[in-house]
Amino acid sequence: MKANPTVAIVGATGAVGAEFIGCIETRNFPVGKLKALASARSAGKTLPFRGQQVVIEELTEASFEGVDIALFSAGGSISKKFAPIAVKAGAVVVDNSSAFRMLEDVPLVIPEINANRIKDHKGIIANPNCATITALVPLWPVHKKNRIKRLIISTYQAASGAGAAAMAELADSTKAYLEGKPYEPKVLPHPYAFNLFSHNTAIEETGYNGEETKVIIETRKIFEDQQIAVNATCVRVPVLRAHSESITFECEAPITPEEVRALLIDAPGVKLVDDREKNYFPMPIDASGQGDVLVGRIRKDLSDPSGHSVSIFVAADQLLKGAALNAVQIAELL
Amino acid sequence: MKANPTVAIVGATGAVGAEFIGCIETRNFPVGKLKALASARSAGKTLPFRGQQVVIEELTEASFEGVDIALFSAGGSISKKFAPIAVKAGAVVVDNSSAFRMLEDVPLVIPEINANRIKDHKGIIANPNCATITALVPLWPVHKKNRIKRLIISTYQAASGAGAAAMAELADSTKAYLEGKPYEPKVLPHPYAFNLFSHNTAIEETGYNGEETKVIIETRKIFEDQQIAVNATCVRVPVLRAHSESITFECEAPITPEEVRALLIDAPGVKLVDDREKNYFPMPIDASGQGDVLVGRIRKDLSDPSGHSVSIFVAADQLLKGAALNAVQIAELL
Repeated sequence: MKANPTVAIVGATGAVGAEFIGCIETRNFPVGKLKALASARSAGKTLPFRGQQVVIEELTEASFEGVDIALFSAGGSISKKFAPIAVKAGAVVVDNSSAFRMLEDVPLVIPEINANRIKDHKGIIANPNCATITALVPLWPVHKKNRIKRLIISTYQAASGAGAAAMAELADSTKAYLEGKPYEPKVLPHPYAFNLFSHNTAIEETGYNGEETKVIIETRKIFEDQQIAVNATCVRVPVLRAHSESITFECEAPITPEEVRALLIDAPGVKLVDDREKNYFPMPIDASGQGDVLVGRIRKDLSDPSGHSVSIFVAADQLLKGAALNAVQIAELL
Repeated sequence: MKANPTVAIVGATGAVGAEFIGCIETRNFPVGKLKALASARSAGKTLPFRGQQVVIEELTEASFEGVDIALFSAGGSISKKFAPIAVKAGAVVVDNSSAFRMLEDVPLVIPEINANRIKDHKGIIANPNCATITALVPLWPVHKKNRIKRLIISTYQAASGAGAAAMAELADSTKAYLEGKPYEPKVLPHPYAFNLFSHNTAIEETGYNGEETKVIIETRKIFEDQQIAVNATCVRVPVLRAHSESITFECEAPITPEEVRALLIDAPGVKLVDDREKNYFPMPIDASGQGDVLVGRIRKDLSDPSGHSVSIFVAADQLLKGAALNAVQIAELL
């Protein structure tokens, strides 16, 4: 890869797109030229980047000429159509959708875990699902030391996971509720003001929804361990950004909460927030806007008297580590 | 018990107190006389009851003369002080606090599960914790048929569990957030607008907070099974009323989701809300204002290949089935 690559952002006006640009700026990613691509509707508008204005261009089949790295976050169907075009034009694609994640020749990468897989790419590297990233960054140091064989996750997922329009719907519908006005949901299938609901992806034959299935199968691929037994319950809560998760895991050998704490205290991408006296633990507002996965509530799983299981509670910015930051970290490693 | 008992409500101006009165009205509970008791601050104000106005009296040691049933919901310290006084004056106390729940001679009752224990009372009957009730009503029909030996619960608890002032704080702080104004939390220890946090009860030596410990020990007492291994993670979410819970349970013998569904379809106090095609499952706004525990997302726990475990998602009105309704049901059985 050249020293100052041309980087294209596909979905530049979306919630993750904005964070791509933010991450590139704050991390001083050595972009030569930035191309902001979006739908025709946004073409001609501008976006601020390093003190200048970048004009948004319409995404077309000709958009990728001269592009070295293309960061995609515009949904699965856009990725399916345009990622192969970008690869053909010579770009390496880091794709935030689920379109290519489970393909055998597409590395699925969380840099803290399997940066070594990046080199195997055939043009496309996939960014995992945000709920997967949030869980796996803190679980990896444990798994490496004492294999995790069973994993039970309940998520508390923010509006941001469904995009900027869903964030606006949460704010607007809550405002309407507080003013006693009616509000008809447009983006999400259920009323969102002071409410929560099962994740809005279709339920599959297993009874698990699409989001839950992603967490299950992506965990196995990233940990390169097909035997991990995973249960996920994905729930959308009325939080604007940053996902939280209640996680219980069972290891092959006995493990104590103190051992988990010792493994996580200096782990990359992890920040311990576990103050029992002050009752201060990971919260979405603290996770928002920063790159680490916050981890706390580290304690023995009292439902497993064998001493092989520990419970934790985590929170991470869905738009940063859950999406844009992870992708930019991958791009840096390119 | 006489046919038209005099009923005292202790904590009549609180969130649960208001629901006590509502439940007595809607269920046509045959109250002879209603005494509304509260702190001196509220004395002299009135409350509507059956088309008339009841004058709120200050709670004193003399308040319980002639009272047959006293419904307490004014916090543990009020219960500790005044419940024995009420009993001495001849009343039967149904107490919504945690003050007496674990005492051996105090029945801890969910009518759908152990109404038979009411007769053992020595003056006080305890109402379980709201998170406990929400979980156990749907688990009981399963446990009776195929013993539940392990239980992992993650809660999504509403503001109402912390009282009317916490509900107001959620609404007020959210309004301030949407208007870009600062807001200093007064009732709860953390900012609540579009945020969530670990339950605001003190963390014990086990690493579990007070709320989680209640769920663990109350489950064993109500099911009369000291061997059930329980793990609870209690989280406060920005929902006004109605608690939700993600529950995974493991039974002694193999069990299928279909068997669980068959056990729950006509179970007392349970309503199945499990429409996979429409992605329609239990939500707090649907649970609010009605008496059943909504149950859905009934599916195999994919992290237990032995087929002994099933996951469900539930929601129930914390102020009704989680508190006032359960207590009034107990009073009816008296």
